[in-house]
Amino acid sequence: MRMFIAGMDGYLGWSLAQHLARRGHQVAGADALMRRSWVEGMGSVSAIPIAGIEDRLEALREQTGQALPFWQGDLREYDLVERIFREYEPEAVIHLGECPSAPYSMIDRDRTMFVQMNNLTTTFNLLFAIRDLAPGAHLLKLGTMGEYGTPNVDIPEGFFEVEFRGRKDWVPFPRQAPSWYHWSKVHGSNNIMFASKIWGLRATDVMQGVVFGTRIESMGDDPRLRTRLDFDQAFGTAINRFACQAVMEHPLTPYGAGGQVRGFLPLRDSMQCLTLALENPPQPGEYRVFNQFEEVYKIRDLAGIVSDAARDVGLHGAVTPVENPRALVERYDHHYAPDHSRLSELGYRPTHDVAKEVRIMLEDLLPHRDRIAAHQQSLLPNVHWNGARHRVGKWQGQPVPASRQPGDQNQEARTSV
Amino acid sequence: MRMFIAGMDGYLGWSLAQHLARRGHQVAGADALMRRSWVEGMGSVSAIPIAGIEDRLEALREQTGQALPFWQGDLREYDLVERIFREYEPEAVIHLGECPSAPYSMIDRDRTMFVQMNNLTTTFNLLFAIRDLAPGAHLLKLGTMGEYGTPNVDIPEGFFEVEFRGRKDWVPFPRQAPSWYHWSKVHGSNNIMFASKIWGLRATDVMQGVVFGTRIESMGDDPRLRTRLDFDQAFGTAINRFACQAVMEHPLTPYGAGGQVRGFLPLRDSMQCLTLALENPPQPGEYRVFNQFEEVYKIRDLAGIVSDAARDVGLHGAVTPVENPRALVERYDHHYAPDHSRLSELGYRPTHDVAKEVRIMLEDLLPHRDRIAAHQQSLLPNVHWNGARHRVGKWQGQPVPASRQPGDQNQEARTSV
Repeated sequence: MRMFIAGMDGYLGWSLAQHLARRGHQVAGADALMRRSWVEGMGSVSAIPIAGIEDRLEALREQTGQALPFWQGDLREYDLVERIFREYEPEAVIHLGECPSAPYSMIDRDRTMFVQMNNLTTTFNLLFAIRDLAPGAHLLKLGTMGEYGTPNVDIPEGFFEVEFRGRKDWVPFPRQAPSWYHWSKVHGSNNIMFASKIWGLRATDVMQGVVFGTRIESMGDDPRLRTRLDFDQAFGTAINRFACQAVMEHPLTPYGAGGQVRGFLPLRDSMQCLTLALENPPQPGEYRVFNQFEEVYKIRDLAGIVSDAARDVGLHGAVTPVENPRALVERYDHHYAPDHSRLSELGYRPTHDVAKEVRIMLEDLLPHRDRIAAHQQSLLPNVHWNGARHRVGKWQGQPVPASRQPGDQNQEARTSV
Repeated sequence: MRMFIAGMDGYLGWSLAQHLARRGHQVAGADALMRRSWVEGMGSVSAIPIAGIEDRLEALREQTGQALPFWQGDLREYDLVERIFREYEPEAVIHLGECPSAPYSMIDRDRTMFVQMNNLTTTFNLLFAIRDLAPGAHLLKLGTMGEYGTPNVDIPEGFFEVEFRGRKDWVPFPRQAPSWYHWSKVHGSNNIMFASKIWGLRATDVMQGVVFGTRIESMGDDPRLRTRLDFDQAFGTAINRFACQAVMEHPLTPYGAGGQVRGFLPLRDSMQCLTLALENPPQPGEYRVFNQFEEVYKIRDLAGIVSDAARDVGLHGAVTPVENPRALVERYDHHYAPDHSRLSELGYRPTHDVAKEVRIMLEDLLPHRDRIAAHQQSLLPNVHWNGARHRVGKWQGQPVPASRQPGDQNQEARTSV
């Protein structure tokens, strides 16, 4: 199948390009390389050094025999999108071409607007290009589990039967996103749902859990094939950040009580899931939503797992919770039970062993401990959700033992926003 | 109270400026006068001639003794918004500064993007300006009942208690908007809900029904005080369009079976409701949603009411349904029972007599019948929701009698999008 990856230079994009090419798909991509400058703007670098795009493409050509068409440019420009679609005629469009950071979107007005406008514009350009130039193509859009927020009821896969005052309907599940970035994803989901309805497009919207991990098999030992791994406050995600803290012997810093419950999956599982969605496309006019994660953990329990793995390799593995910059929107020890059966029905076989994955990460990251330590200032947050700007201090709340059980306690009454 | 009206030159904005000034509020406004050029771009004009902005402001000064501060400029420019807030220090911000047309947003990629980006950007600029320069100010945002779509269950005012698999929560009601424009309003509602939560802003989001009518009392006989009334396919709304067809003796053209049920209210009631919301602001951090309409009608019944009124003044008042350009997203004779008690609780006393309001409209419009007839080509739609472009023909479905009863038949099973 002819696959086009928007955002091919990113954490997921670069991994997916390899994964799909090795499975025999034709792969092309585009990227403006913005992620590199965003992370630089946060005073950081990828923990694992990554090659320039030319070297990356050359390595992939050597490995797979495919010369991947690549356009270096900004997908907010419709002329570029149009040119790509005319030249490449994609059968599937994988949309990873968005700014993916919640904290980045909370920095200031310019960043808030940039994240929402950028993400809406790239999505629109791909939607219109599919409508006009590749109407049979399947749009696979990366969303996030964060779109749903953390309601006090189970979370279905996109839609549910609502019953209200004795009547029923099948409707979109309400979204309560926790950042401007997450709302940009909600806006995008809504736009794609509507485009599918009026234009008969095929679309899969993947509500992805938090991804962690440093590698997939195909990367082997070729440094040009390695994907980036961020640990700064904006582009680093929980487990990746903990692993980087562990290798530089900085205490792991869960936010607040660490009782936030989220769905997680390793990078290799993300590749497996996206591939399953691509190889089993929806029908014309079908907008389907997959929740993509395998297991839910409390953040403090994940810190415990990384800490244990760190101690196993002789690092101190201390854990010191810090003030939660997102305290306004995050609950602790809350209900969290999202459905996630649709990808399993397509054949998803999850990697259950998080501890093993974390050990691989520590091995991959240890050679780069000095590089990580040199940018450690970028890790602890100073962007608060209420608009304040100060480096977080030690968390002053009660100590909470790591329970290692996804929890369902503390079902306090929800308040309206 | 110091009120700032974003979009003061529009149908509602110009009426509201007068209404508030006469009630003794201080009023200021801004507008880029885009509505004038959008309607011109549709090959049309306001049915009722309107004065230039300078003459309008002069008339208002004569009438109220107030010299209203006015900024002619684009609220997408944050510099302008910042300057206005510093100079005027508003206590309430009424946001009417959006592109308000569903059909306009469906024309092509450029218009789709323009409507969403324009509406998101003006909303963001006002939100950030309130946060940083007028944190106590009340944001009154004009939304639309269209944000909800037409689900097969009752529609609450913004939020409801959902029960799902034995658990409960208080959550936003799912939105299923029927056009790119309506989705821009949903995106805006979501952004405002979130801003209120993280920044403690006061906000009222008004889900307004379809407004009709040519005047409010304060306009009297001064042509400079009259507000615009559009009848073209993009900016004309149902009753306004029917009234213009009646005076030029063109058959009234409901779309399709005419069994679409919507909430309606006259312009004078819209003014009353917005004023009540402004004079009873929410608490800091409170995001409240009001459904603003009084009665629900089927479109074919409204055509019947306009037709009767037209015959009373000697016009032929024929009704000829045309092909429905929105057939993809519109249901007929569906359930429609939105709550609308919150404005009544604040004291809203509705004008129940639609027929009387329509007679006033016909009187106001008859002197301009030649002007309307000269632009009649702009009225019948050629913008279809599936992307097609052709002038609608006569509707080929079964004739349906006007029932004059808001209906609840035909509860067919809903399909997922």
